[in-house]
Amino acid sequence: MRCPIVTLTTDFGLKDPYVAEMKAVILSLSPNVEVVDITHEVEKFNVRTGAYVLASAAPYFPKGTIHVAIVDPSVGTERQPILIQTGDGYFIGPDNGVLALAARNTEGREHVRRIVNKKLMMSKVSNTFHGRDIFAPAAAHLANGISPEEFGPEISEILMPEFAKIIRRKDMLVGEVIHVDDFGNIVTSFGKKEIGFMESKRTINLKLRNTELRLRFCKAYGEVDRRKPLALIGSHDFLEISINQGSAAKVFKIKSGDKVTLYCS
Amino acid sequence: MRCPIVTLTTDFGLKDPYVAEMKAVILSLSPNVEVVDITHEVEKFNVRTGAYVLASAAPYFPKGTIHVAIVDPSVGTERQPILIQTGDGYFIGPDNGVLALAARNTEGREHVRRIVNKKLMMSKVSNTFHGRDIFAPAAAHLANGISPEEFGPEISEILMPEFAKIIRRKDMLVGEVIHVDDFGNIVTSFGKKEIGFMESKRTINLKLRNTELRLRFCKAYGEVDRRKPLALIGSHDFLEISINQGSAAKVFKIKSGDKVTLYCS
Amino acid sequence: MRCPIVTLTTDFGLKDPYVAEMKAVILSLSPNVEVVDITHEVEKFNVRTGAYVLASAAPYFPKGTIHVAIVDPSVGTERQPILIQTGDGYFIGPDNGVLALAARNTEGREHVRRIVNKKLMMSKVSNTFHGRDIFAPAAAHLANGISPEEFGPEISEILMPEFAKIIRRKDMLVGEVIHVDDFGNIVTSFGKKEIGFMESKRTINLKLRNTELRLRFCKAYGEVDRRKPLALIGSHDFLEISINQGSAAKVFKIKSGDKVTLYCS
Repeated sequence: MRCPIVTLTTDFGLKDPYVAEMKAVILSLSPNVEVVDITHEVEKFNVRTGAYVLASAAPYFPKGTIHVAIVDPSVGTERQPILIQTGDGYFIGPDNGVLALAARNTEGREHVRRIVNKKLMMSKVSNTFHGRDIFAPAAAHLANGISPEEFGPEISEILMPEFAKIIRRKDMLVGEVIHVDDFGNIVTSFGKKEIGFMESKRTINLKLRNTELRLRFCKAYGEVDRRKPLALIGSHDFLEISINQGSAAKVFKIKSGDKVTLYCS
Repeated sequence: MRCPIVTLTTDFGLKDPYVAEMKAVILSLSPNVEVVDITHEVEKFNVRTGAYVLASAAPYFPKGTIHVAIVDPSVGTERQPILIQTGDGYFIGPDNGVLALAARNTEGREHVRRIVNKKLMMSKVSNTFHGRDIFAPAAAHLANGISPEEFGPEISEILMPEFAKIIRRKDMLVGEVIHVDDFGNIVTSFGKKEIGFMESKRTINLKLRNTELRLRFCKAYGEVDRRKPLALIGSHDFLEISINQGSAAKVFKIKSGDKVTLYCS
Repeated sequence: MRCPIVTLTTDFGLKDPYVAEMKAVILSLSPNVEVVDITHEVEKFNVRTGAYVLASAAPYFPKGTIHVAIVDPSVGTERQPILIQTGDGYFIGPDNGVLALAARNTEGREHVRRIVNKKLMMSKVSNTFHGRDIFAPAAAHLANGISPEEFGPEISEILMPEFAKIIRRKDMLVGEVIHVDDFGNIVTSFGKKEIGFMESKRTINLKLRNTELRLRFCKAYGEVDRRKPLALIGSHDFLEISINQGSAAKVFKIKSGDKVTLYCS
């Protein structure tokens, strides 16, 4: 029989006891849960990066998986803890946008609830570590079969941060860098929809911040020589700018949020 | 049925095969064990930090959990491998203080044993990696139900390092920084006991190394503006000095062990 | 009953969704698998380091373990995905040498197959992330009992990179640094065979790049004073140059691949 899966996505890092405390709370309440780390290395306080990483990984997990995501600079203030139920699974975390992208991408109508039932929290709730005191116990109780209705009242809206939008101008598309991965690959906000028109092209022209580039449009990194730049559709179907066996982000001095302009002519 | 849990706390880092070798040894001897990493990013050779992280996380694990902690600059010399049994669980590692704080905080009388039974070690014991050759097999055998008496003779004392003490002077308390977390929060040695008297206060005065500070005493980081300093009781009930969405340790140039003076008037 | 174990060794790092996507794919296809990380911090694109770390850890896992290793700068080009079966277990990854050292060290005759059966891959295979789309599903299907023959045709040779060789000259042995661990210990290519002759010696003479050294030959790091250099046989039976509670690699400015000369007289 399949054990319930709980995933964790945080900006806590790996040197402190925080992640282990969450796992300890989950395993104490629900011993058969399989906890899977998505990452604990989200840039500190960067809600958008947390949202992007969760939304990338979540679709590959089995239906019914419980995802906990915590990038939570406003912990202990008026922002609400929420539980989102979709056709694919559950999303638990603060209502600050970190869950929004992943939940929006899943199938089935969303039901969102505020988590207010104190019986489903640690007996003592700190003001600084809701991961351990509210979100981990919520995930464990949900894994144990407690119904979402028990956690709190349904609400109609969640905070939806402005994720990268694409602006169309006459002969160009203006988007942005949504992620720089650990290899230094630059993931842009241009998805298959925007760039479908150029799939037959062999080169593309773009401006990365202030650098004009004409890049070979490849299928794989190894199609250009070592240390040479290229563009391709990455494994999450976004346009990526990369350097074969090198870091494009370092070479082009790019960070998440930077502007990218794609010339269509 | 609950699987036995073995936790690991080390300064091994994550790029080498060492942690995986410990897990391989544990799972080879005791296939049903659930291994949970507390951290492998303890500052190299820093026994006190290892002790603090283990002591923070251990209380959240279920009763009977087996904790292995290895920060072990003297591996292979005369320091002894030990096994501590308390009312809450088991602690396995070198007798250099890394287990002392966690074991002291648990309930029930401690029984401490030297680990000397070679039948419960790897057949070949290296002088440089007791984690794999002595401590991992000890955890696995214990998880399999081998009685603590089998490991070796009881001893009456363990090495107790000088953990941060608090000195009371007329109008001040002198303590120290016991941990700097990955966010840059400065965790001091002042617990609820010492600072209970000031719970109604709205500001506190303190000296952090040589910097005199008057800080707002908050419940949550978000009560002050972004990048502003504050003080609060952290999630482990110690006084913390923090910066909202910033690193207090960087701003105040503080590291673990630095002196903190709290003015009570 | 023992769950099948799948290990992962990659250069993906821990901040991106990539490792979690592999785990999600494995657990979706084979819910009872126990996934164990060996490391995801192999130096980017460094096939030899990946091969060394996998070969170090693999022998400690139970027979039948499925090892997936991905350091794969040529993903999506003509290099082949392979599955190696030995008497000890299975090795899955690109045919670029990353599996070669571990497979060579195991018992039993090797059978190597190209992975070509598209039914045992993700329905859509990207050109940039075979870890998720080919190697993770292969491991899961193998754990489910699918026979190796189903994956593709047997081939007779795999790519065997030049791992460190040892050259004997009159009075010296010339080898190289095969790994620098997270402590800064310098692991050389001199194994027990080469240095057996000097086990009774108390000092050894060697040249580390251009630095001539006369080092005490110890059993444990703690036999010399803090911050002093030493040589010893490490926990994987190679000659190591270390500094007690310090980083030999930093002090001697050494990296993987550097030359080491050992004087035998």
